[in-house]
Amino acid sequence: MPYRDLSCNELKKEYQKVKAEFEGWRTKGLSLNMARGKPGKEQLDMVSDILTVLAKPEDCVDGTLDARNYGEIRGVPSSRVLFADILGCRPEQVFVGGNASLQLMYDTIAKAYTHGLPHSSRPWCKEEKIKWLCPAPGYDRHFRITESFGFELITVPMKETGPDMDFVEKLVAEPAVKGMWTVPKYSNPEGIIYSKETIHRLAALKPAAPDFMLMWDNAYCIHEFEGEYVPFPDILSLCEAEGNGDMVFEFASTSKITLPGAGVACFACSETNMAHMISVMDAQVISFDKVNQLRHVKYLKNKAHALELMKKHAAILAPKFQTVLQILSRELGNLEIVSWSHPKGGYFISLNTAPGLAKRTLTLCRQAGVTMTDAGATFPYGQDPQDSNIRIAPSLPPIGELEQAMTVFCCCLKLAALETLRN
Amino acid sequence: MPYRDLSCNELKKEYQKVKAEFEGWRTKGLSLNMARGKPGKEQLDMVSDILTVLAKPEDCVDGTLDARNYGEIRGVPSSRVLFADILGCRPEQVFVGGNASLQLMYDTIAKAYTHGLPHSSRPWCKEEKIKWLCPAPGYDRHFRITESFGFELITVPMKETGPDMDFVEKLVAEPAVKGMWTVPKYSNPEGIIYSKETIHRLAALKPAAPDFMLMWDNAYCIHEFEGEYVPFPDILSLCEAEGNGDMVFEFASTSKITLPGAGVACFACSETNMAHMISVMDAQVISFDKVNQLRHVKYLKNKAHALELMKKHAAILAPKFQTVLQILSRELGNLEIVSWSHPKGGYFISLNTAPGLAKRTLTLCRQAGVTMTDAGATFPYGQDPQDSNIRIAPSLPPIGELEQAMTVFCCCLKLAALETLRN
Repeated sequence: MPYRDLSCNELKKEYQKVKAEFEGWRTKGLSLNMARGKPGKEQLDMVSDILTVLAKPEDCVDGTLDARNYGEIRGVPSSRVLFADILGCRPEQVFVGGNASLQLMYDTIAKAYTHGLPHSSRPWCKEEKIKWLCPAPGYDRHFRITESFGFELITVPMKETGPDMDFVEKLVAEPAVKGMWTVPKYSNPEGIIYSKETIHRLAALKPAAPDFMLMWDNAYCIHEFEGEYVPFPDILSLCEAEGNGDMVFEFASTSKITLPGAGVACFACSETNMAHMISVMDAQVISFDKVNQLRHVKYLKNKAHALELMKKHAAILAPKFQTVLQILSRELGNLEIVSWSHPKGGYFISLNTAPGLAKRTLTLCRQAGVTMTDAGATFPYGQDPQDSNIRIAPSLPPIGELEQAMTVFCCCLKLAALETLRN
Repeated sequence: MPYRDLSCNELKKEYQKVKAEFEGWRTKGLSLNMARGKPGKEQLDMVSDILTVLAKPEDCVDGTLDARNYGEIRGVPSSRVLFADILGCRPEQVFVGGNASLQLMYDTIAKAYTHGLPHSSRPWCKEEKIKWLCPAPGYDRHFRITESFGFELITVPMKETGPDMDFVEKLVAEPAVKGMWTVPKYSNPEGIIYSKETIHRLAALKPAAPDFMLMWDNAYCIHEFEGEYVPFPDILSLCEAEGNGDMVFEFASTSKITLPGAGVACFACSETNMAHMISVMDAQVISFDKVNQLRHVKYLKNKAHALELMKKHAAILAPKFQTVLQILSRELGNLEIVSWSHPKGGYFISLNTAPGLAKRTLTLCRQAGVTMTDAGATFPYGQDPQDSNIRIAPSLPPIGELEQAMTVFCCCLKLAALETLRN
């Protein structure tokens, strides 16, 4: 029965029961972590053959290029072909970097800040004010990048089809609005795939700022854990068709395909942007780790082969997501204090409690030894106006721990709800 | 006999002889490259065992840390111990990053530019004017970093003991002078080891700028190719002893120890600077490639073991340097149109022609199919006021090619000198 329909006495009883359960957990001294979207050990072990695919000097050659030596700032050519295959763009549009797409995103914005972009009238550090669109709930590390440069973060509501485009189209008319974060496929944390209409309206935006950046973080481009691969349009050609070719920077990585700490990341952009980026980056980098790039080419081969590997990840991930959803449903299904997403890909489940319960729930979780992503983290400045959204990351713990952690979590959420209802 | 002592007739004859020799080379259609300090294939092959030192999941653990997953921004702890051992500082002072120290240098200055350093009153992008000290001849990529941020580059003359310290001490009294490049051991390109007095005066500098950066690029810290390892003081403790602990950032990498394109780089600094850098970098990076860091720990083990490996590099490099020096001596020894350095470590030989010959010599080289580092590259803005300095990088070509390239080079330098003397 929904909590709000309970009588005063029933509420008291339920509170006492849940409180006792909580105290039971608290004395257990658990230490469980669902804070970040880290792949689990089983996934890491599954892909660790990648460590030895390059074993001898002659393995390290890509055409005429010796990947072991200096040079080739844009990355090993075959690795650019691989990412172009995965993203559906052209190899000339791809720059393959180091182990982290986050760093490429930071650096791209940093270059706009220190040097400007092709259509900038000046470097952004010389602008009075810069504003940035942040669909929320969204990815905390995105928001922190733009916050760290002092941009004003504007929260864009998320709908089931992606960011609220009426809102976005209105806001980009302001010249100070210089860019926008997106995670278009299996959005972090809600697991939404942007609708065709949303994608088309994004590609067709008419921002007042000539150097507006659509940051297209395609982090989960081939990351289905349930069902077949969902084809996804190439944003570069869509933008180009709308006369917006230089507006978009796309990002991807193998962090959740091979090894999260030792993968390969890329950005893709128009050839005008590419020429500009290379001219600026040329002072920063001789080349990224091409041996690791080539290692990935030999291991992943092409998109079709990478998709086969993703099926194996799915076989490990799907039961974890199912476990979380089952426990949520079992423990909270009828209480009407919370709703949650049912993604088919990505790394997260997004959960919205009744307003005002998120922080308290996670404080209780911490007390019971379960670490979750901080409440508020999915909103700009870490401030969720409703204190409602919680991001659940089921990938790291083994199923046994996950069951325990989720049971604790549900207990804490119930307790938080009951505390409020009793007052 | 020195060229300047030749009679008019002798000069004409010599010119005709050298010109004929040059034309002979030109028709050969050579394609030889001594432009950059790239290790040769023999060196790469020698260290390629590093590719397989991590082969299985259990190899990827450092203490309790799984190097394959996200996290640990400062790098795998054992890799920080390794670099501290090599540099003579403490592991807490070491940050281990990706494959390129150049990128860490760029990023450190970029952070000063976008966010400021602990003692900055504002980010450097908000300053009217920034000036930077560039000992020259020096490393072109250093100069380009600071040029790319719009700093005014000030040339500091190099002496046999290192940068002209009277000059440096005078210049740092100006608050706009915010930093200085150094390559203190086997300087690029001259191969000088800074004297004890120079190092002490650098550590004891009293810059007017409270956020002055001494960029200590210890690129060749264990890179002797002749004779025994030369111990070198820890600049961090020297600066600290002078009350300048936060003034210095030291850099090093394994680019010329293991694989140039796939090594590991670090910076070392005071704990105040480290805390600041991590707080700013935390928005940029989750972690660098820790698998490659651990790979390096397993392969290099410690300083003593790394020094043994450097002896093997030396056995490959020394004959190349000897070849260059022998041909220079044989072809140019008595002409008094040029002098050159005799380094015992590092990657370069620095050559000073009579004024006005460097550009012409390298133009002739290019015509004869030999690519060298551009004339002027060793000076700020690529402008050598004397048009005299040429950097020779003997490491890449096999000995046979090196002999040919150097013979061509000497022919071109003679021809350039004779052209001038005949006018």
